[in-house]
Amino acid sequence: MGPIVLLTDFGLKDPYVGVMKGVIAGIAPRATVIDLSHGVPRHDVRAAAFCLRTSARFFPPESIFVAVVDPGVGGGRKILWARSGDSHFLAPDNGALAWLEASPAEFREVLPKRSGLVQVSTTFHGRDVFAPAAARLWQGEPPARLGPSVKPSIWPEFPTPRRSKGRIAGEVLYVDGFGNTVTNMKSSLVGPESRVVFRGRDLGRLLGTYSEAPPKGPCAVAASSGYVELALREGSFAEERRVRIGEKVEIRGA
Amino acid sequence: MGPIVLLTDFGLKDPYVGVMKGVIAGIAPRATVIDLSHGVPRHDVRAAAFCLRTSARFFPPESIFVAVVDPGVGGGRKILWARSGDSHFLAPDNGALAWLEASPAEFREVLPKRSGLVQVSTTFHGRDVFAPAAARLWQGEPPARLGPSVKPSIWPEFPTPRRSKGRIAGEVLYVDGFGNTVTNMKSSLVGPESRVVFRGRDLGRLLGTYSEAPPKGPCAVAASSGYVELALREGSFAEERRVRIGEKVEIRGA
Amino acid sequence: MGPIVLLTDFGLKDPYVGVMKGVIAGIAPRATVIDLSHGVPRHDVRAAAFCLRTSARFFPPESIFVAVVDPGVGGGRKILWARSGDSHFLAPDNGALAWLEASPAEFREVLPKRSGLVQVSTTFHGRDVFAPAAARLWQGEPPARLGPSVKPSIWPEFPTPRRSKGRIAGEVLYVDGFGNTVTNMKSSLVGPESRVVFRGRDLGRLLGTYSEAPPKGPCAVAASSGYVELALREGSFAEERRVRIGEKVEIRGA
Repeated sequence: MGPIVLLTDFGLKDPYVGVMKGVIAGIAPRATVIDLSHGVPRHDVRAAAFCLRTSARFFPPESIFVAVVDPGVGGGRKILWARSGDSHFLAPDNGALAWLEASPAEFREVLPKRSGLVQVSTTFHGRDVFAPAAARLWQGEPPARLGPSVKPSIWPEFPTPRRSKGRIAGEVLYVDGFGNTVTNMKSSLVGPESRVVFRGRDLGRLLGTYSEAPPKGPCAVAASSGYVELALREGSFAEERRVRIGEKVEIRGA
Repeated sequence: MGPIVLLTDFGLKDPYVGVMKGVIAGIAPRATVIDLSHGVPRHDVRAAAFCLRTSARFFPPESIFVAVVDPGVGGGRKILWARSGDSHFLAPDNGALAWLEASPAEFREVLPKRSGLVQVSTTFHGRDVFAPAAARLWQGEPPARLGPSVKPSIWPEFPTPRRSKGRIAGEVLYVDGFGNTVTNMKSSLVGPESRVVFRGRDLGRLLGTYSEAPPKGPCAVAASSGYVELALREGSFAEERRVRIGEKVEIRGA
Repeated sequence: MGPIVLLTDFGLKDPYVGVMKGVIAGIAPRATVIDLSHGVPRHDVRAAAFCLRTSARFFPPESIFVAVVDPGVGGGRKILWARSGDSHFLAPDNGALAWLEASPAEFREVLPKRSGLVQVSTTFHGRDVFAPAAARLWQGEPPARLGPSVKPSIWPEFPTPRRSKGRIAGEVLYVDGFGNTVTNMKSSLVGPESRVVFRGRDLGRLLGTYSEAPPKGPCAVAASSGYVELALREGSFAEERRVRIGEKVEIRGA
């Protein structure tokens, strides 16, 4: 088995993530646990989906991803297990798995009574269901034991940029901790002469690195995620411009 | 042995926690180290005690908890080893272990000269005493080698809520990173018709999940810690109300 | 092999550090990975150099340190492997390794084509070169396979304090998360009658612990790093005084 990989919006101030690891250590003491991030903006399922989309391919086969961004915890929403490529994914049925590059081939509902702790709270399924289910998978429990086959009920499409007349119309998907503003447009779509435009302003051609940008100047960069990113050298593009998720970004001369 | 579990107020900006792990890796390279949290408010021994109280039971037997919230470091305070249930605890003699659910059965003083690094600083016992003592315990060193039997000198009682005439008078114990405001009142004490009152305002009945609360509305929830928690759906209750630790919370019709 | 030890300025909000660990887990699944810190101020190579200088000696032999504070990523700068004492170090050729206590005896250039992933981005060498190179070293790959012998091109001297007529003239090197202000002056240089002076104000003699300082009062402490540190008991010295890196600090009567 690969590592158990945790992605949550719990932050790191409180013992919530630590307690999940305690539960895992009690069931699968030899598992390696990796924090993908616990800084997903609270309840931002799209941000979680984007993190999984761009990160999953860097993990080894048989990784067990656990994504707990779960505004509906304790309500009627189901918990999903999915297989995508060689890896396992656990997440609420809220779209967090919908943007994986390798679209999942198989889904199951994770039944708390089968896979959870003896006492399952209504507010912390990360600890009471996700952590024990992941640990049991790591120990070799067959996914069929988690619960029955199911179809996800919320499955938003990845917002593919629209192309017409030499223009590509995209949008802002994610803002990172430095204020770099990641779009939904693959850098590979952008030709060497294309211009990146935001709020009517031409940010120039797509740069290969931040170090090509003028100091303090705004720029567009072919980012490590594979997507076009708007940035401010030595500054926060998103903060200075008060960027909102979903804002339009355009490529001209594509 | 179970994992070594770290709880500190060191934060994650600096290399302090990393260096503790370096010391552990030098003595017990095969130990699993889990961060319970490094976000305890600085010098807040009560917050540390509450984290241990609510978290310890989720860790496997033979865990070694290391709680370094230590405003008195370098002064005369002792360092304690305690056994509570099946697990080991190391903490300053300042009350950090006083609220454990399983009251410790045995205490020892940890003598820096026996269990610490060759050079022990006066300002960073986390690195110089706690980390090596934990690693040696993990390697099988008998607790008796850490130092002599001792009684703790600071041992505050858990502030049990007072009950009279259908009312329960409690208080705020902990504020988490989302502004959720945790009280000292067990949710199991609260009947289905009871009302939760804060600063004279009726917050309604105890909800089972956040999703039952009105959007942006204040509410009281049976939280995953087992205690009644005051919260604001999609907001920070503690910040908006400037909640102070120790403020009164009341349950009526209990 | 010892642990792989990560030091970056990536922060913990985003999946960047997690993805580096995914790459490591794919190549060296049994390696222990320790976070030294991911809170180095962005692009602050001197802060990274200081963290390595004061931390490295607490890690076991054969540790593999990976320092990615890399404002020049994607430009022409080289990536260095160095051996210092018993340990390996990987860092950009920007001075991050220049302040190690044990001056490195051997350097090599790490060639991305030999040691990196199949596709190497221009913006995230932490993931694409540093992580796989560290994992391969851990798996036993000989350093000679990383690339040819080389000399570092940027190698700033540690700013040794100047001594004259009973005075030592030092400077601020690092500010920690509590606002403690670390200087370049070894505490061992300071005699029991010496006074520490900042901006013309006498902060008194060097204390052994914070608990000796007057409440809320400024003080100078022999810190755990081995260096003189300016602090405010129960407050942030650096924030309250708006301390700048490089500011002068003086010891009189040394």
